[in-house]
Amino acid sequence: MLYVSKRMTFSSSHRLFNPEFSDEKNVAVFDKCNNPNGHGHNYTIEVTVAGRPNPETGYVIDLKKLKMIIGKEIISKVDHKHLNHDVDFLSGIIPTAENLTVVFWRILSAAITEGELYRIKLYENENSFVEYHGEKTEITVFK
Amino acid sequence: MLYVSKRMTFSSSHRLFNPEFSDEKNVAVFDKCNNPNGHGHNYTIEVTVAGRPNPETGYVIDLKKLKMIIGKEIISKVDHKHLNHDVDFLSGIIPTAENLTVVFWRILSAAITEGELYRIKLYENENSFVEYHGEKTEITVFK
Amino acid sequence: MLYVSKRMTFSSSHRLFNPEFSDEKNVAVFDKCNNPNGHGHNYTIEVTVAGRPNPETGYVIDLKKLKMIIGKEIISKVDHKHLNHDVDFLSGIIPTAENLTVVFWRILSAAITEGELYRIKLYENENSFVEYHGEKTEITVFK
Amino acid sequence: MLYVSKRMTFSSSHRLFNPEFSDEKNVAVFDKCNNPNGHGHNYTIEVTVAGRPNPETGYVIDLKKLKMIIGKEIISKVDHKHLNHDVDFLSGIIPTAENLTVVFWRILSAAITEGELYRIKLYENENSFVEYHGEKTEITVFK
Amino acid sequence: MLYVSKRMTFSSSHRLFNPEFSDEKNVAVFDKCNNPNGHGHNYTIEVTVAGRPNPETGYVIDLKKLKMIIGKEIISKVDHKHLNHDVDFLSGIIPTAENLTVVFWRILSAAITEGELYRIKLYENENSFVEYHGEKTEITVFK
Amino acid sequence: MLYVSKRMTFSSSHRLFNPEFSDEKNVAVFDKCNNPNGHGHNYTIEVTVAGRPNPETGYVIDLKKLKMIIGKEIISKVDHKHLNHDVDFLSGIIPTAENLTVVFWRILSAAITEGELYRIKLYENENSFVEYHGEKTEITVFK
Repeated sequence: MLYVSKRMTFSSSHRLFNPEFSDEKNVAVFDKCNNPNGHGHNYTIEVTVAGRPNPETGYVIDLKKLKMIIGKEIISKVDHKHLNHDVDFLSGIIPTAENLTVVFWRILSAAITEGELYRIKLYENENSFVEYHGEKTEITVFK
Repeated sequence: MLYVSKRMTFSSSHRLFNPEFSDEKNVAVFDKCNNPNGHGHNYTIEVTVAGRPNPETGYVIDLKKLKMIIGKEIISKVDHKHLNHDVDFLSGIIPTAENLTVVFWRILSAAITEGELYRIKLYENENSFVEYHGEKTEITVFK
Repeated sequence: MLYVSKRMTFSSSHRLFNPEFSDEKNVAVFDKCNNPNGHGHNYTIEVTVAGRPNPETGYVIDLKKLKMIIGKEIISKVDHKHLNHDVDFLSGIIPTAENLTVVFWRILSAAITEGELYRIKLYENENSFVEYHGEKTEITVFK
Repeated sequence: MLYVSKRMTFSSSHRLFNPEFSDEKNVAVFDKCNNPNGHGHNYTIEVTVAGRPNPETGYVIDLKKLKMIIGKEIISKVDHKHLNHDVDFLSGIIPTAENLTVVFWRILSAAITEGELYRIKLYENENSFVEYHGEKTEITVFK
Repeated sequence: MLYVSKRMTFSSSHRLFNPEFSDEKNVAVFDKCNNPNGHGHNYTIEVTVAGRPNPETGYVIDLKKLKMIIGKEIISKVDHKHLNHDVDFLSGIIPTAENLTVVFWRILSAAITEGELYRIKLYENENSFVEYHGEKTEITVFK
Repeated sequence: MLYVSKRMTFSSSHRLFNPEFSDEKNVAVFDKCNNPNGHGHNYTIEVTVAGRPNPETGYVIDLKKLKMIIGKEIISKVDHKHLNHDVDFLSGIIPTAENLTVVFWRILSAAITEGELYRIKLYENENSFVEYHGEKTEITVFK
């Protein structure tokens, strides 16, 4: 197996809060990430696909194709958007890096048809990031 | 003269629009930066102070002091905030990187008393940034 | 004045040699950069435009526009190309970073019409780069 | 087990094409990477060796030694070279990042004798890279 | 399982030598890293915690908490220190990156109580680093 | 004029103190940088030379030559050394980044004979750095 990866970036704002918490508890738990008007990040998403090189091309998957898939399925939906308000597939989900990564996995694992999705890393900045390998994970959706 | 620089980061969201434009014109001019719910960035601010080394310490200005000044005057006011709604000194100002840099200059040039403020660079991301040397510049404040 | 900058990257190969030198002298002068089949780089170009913020938009120049100009005038012509063979405007020019920068200046200073071209930096890699402010400079064109 | 890694860089040009494809099919499959004169990259290779620290030195393998091995076996053969024309051990191989990584593994796994080669990552640029753990993989050699 | 990571930096000096070696052998083995007055690095430590997102917060562990733990347990003890002389928990240990990583693991695996410590990476610089997953490893302590 | 730059790195330890200060005053002024056993950094030095491209080569100065000069005059003297104890030309000088930069200027401006030394930047880390353009500057030498 070889593992090929593509990194792309997007800029979004988000606000962390649990609608079932009191305001006080939201501030206690989420601190400055709970600012009511939100705040933002330049996120980097790194998507890794596992497979064997095609004997005719030497590619596992052409990274230009992988870039197009990530661009169409993820970047075009979240870039320059507010993740709490503007993105259908995140409705009701607390937009922590952890939850975003699980949702992005569900979308990309269906959209990638050459090789197999192996890992997603999501950086909020170069010093804080999440990675995920697709193990079954529940995330909470609030109404 | 020597020039000493400190870089710090903050995460904010912003929305670009001119309250005197129609919605159509705002979309035409600011495009995806006009998303009504805002979007966000990890900004990096790089502040440069010019001066001669103190003969007793070899410092132009102790960078730990410069870091404290930038932290108190800028980072604590803008980090994890929405620049259009949550920051007094940006009220009525379109929060482009250009305008932010001019406002930050006015604040920091008053607050830095060892050496002299020489340059501010403000990065929206590693590929897009503004620099400013303090030449007299008007910026528009909308009511 | 404010200075706004956009960085973009391109991948090209080049070979350094002077057609008026003997083979021995080309090897002595250009060393491993003289390899007959060429070698390559991921170049980064950083273009800086000087101006005052437009009072209606807060922009010196919209960086999305600057990105489109650099993309159309430079990147589309040199990315995934051999600089000695595939680029009309480099014909007969030794493709050192210095010469590339001067040629790029001539093209971009004509194409940028909001604000004024102030500086070009061209990185062969993160540790080797050239900058240029547009002073009159002769470069040699070999037939 | 501990895993120690060394990163090094080299600059090469390459051209992607399959000699058994028609020109039209090569363009369709490899797009701008098929440019006849080739194009180039600053590659980064990251080599990881697994082992236990030597009780007398605290090293798994001295990274200065690992650097010398990578330098002798790989960098000196590919830096400032055209990968399609100038490198014996790549003759007849489509120089995708995937294929390069498999070939580099075969060379380095034989050359590293303290600890054991565990992983190779090869970056074409910071946003596109391949990793490999040495599973048996066939690559096509064209005559 | 999701894996969340925090990176932090510290600046320390160290000297590599084995007190049971002769001076000649220390120079032969550790080369310039054996300089008697020591030398220094900006280290980066990257700590990864594995777990499932808390259904109420969407966090595996709040990265602000993880940052506080790393700061209290590691950074405050080693930053701006000489690792051979100033750090209790490193007494008698050759401060290679390998040994540092094993010691940091022992400390952090006890201090992290939400999720489970999964991986530590320690960079001496961006091109040289060690990673460790907690397998039982002996390191030598000299009296 | 064109400006060509080369970046190189070195690892050193240093301790900041003024021999004419009391211990208390040294701690008050230099804080954790005053740790008696010193601490360390991975420094990056960026050296910029100004000139016009040679009509025969297209180079201002071959960056391989500039790298050799910096390597011989600076890196070989300071890498893996303690700046307070092991470097002749720093004897009696408080090794702040400011003072190091002035001393490096004096050495390199004499050693560079193609083009002219234009700027030195010295990074203690990516967020703290000094630049200098060679204006006459006194630095204190303690006996």
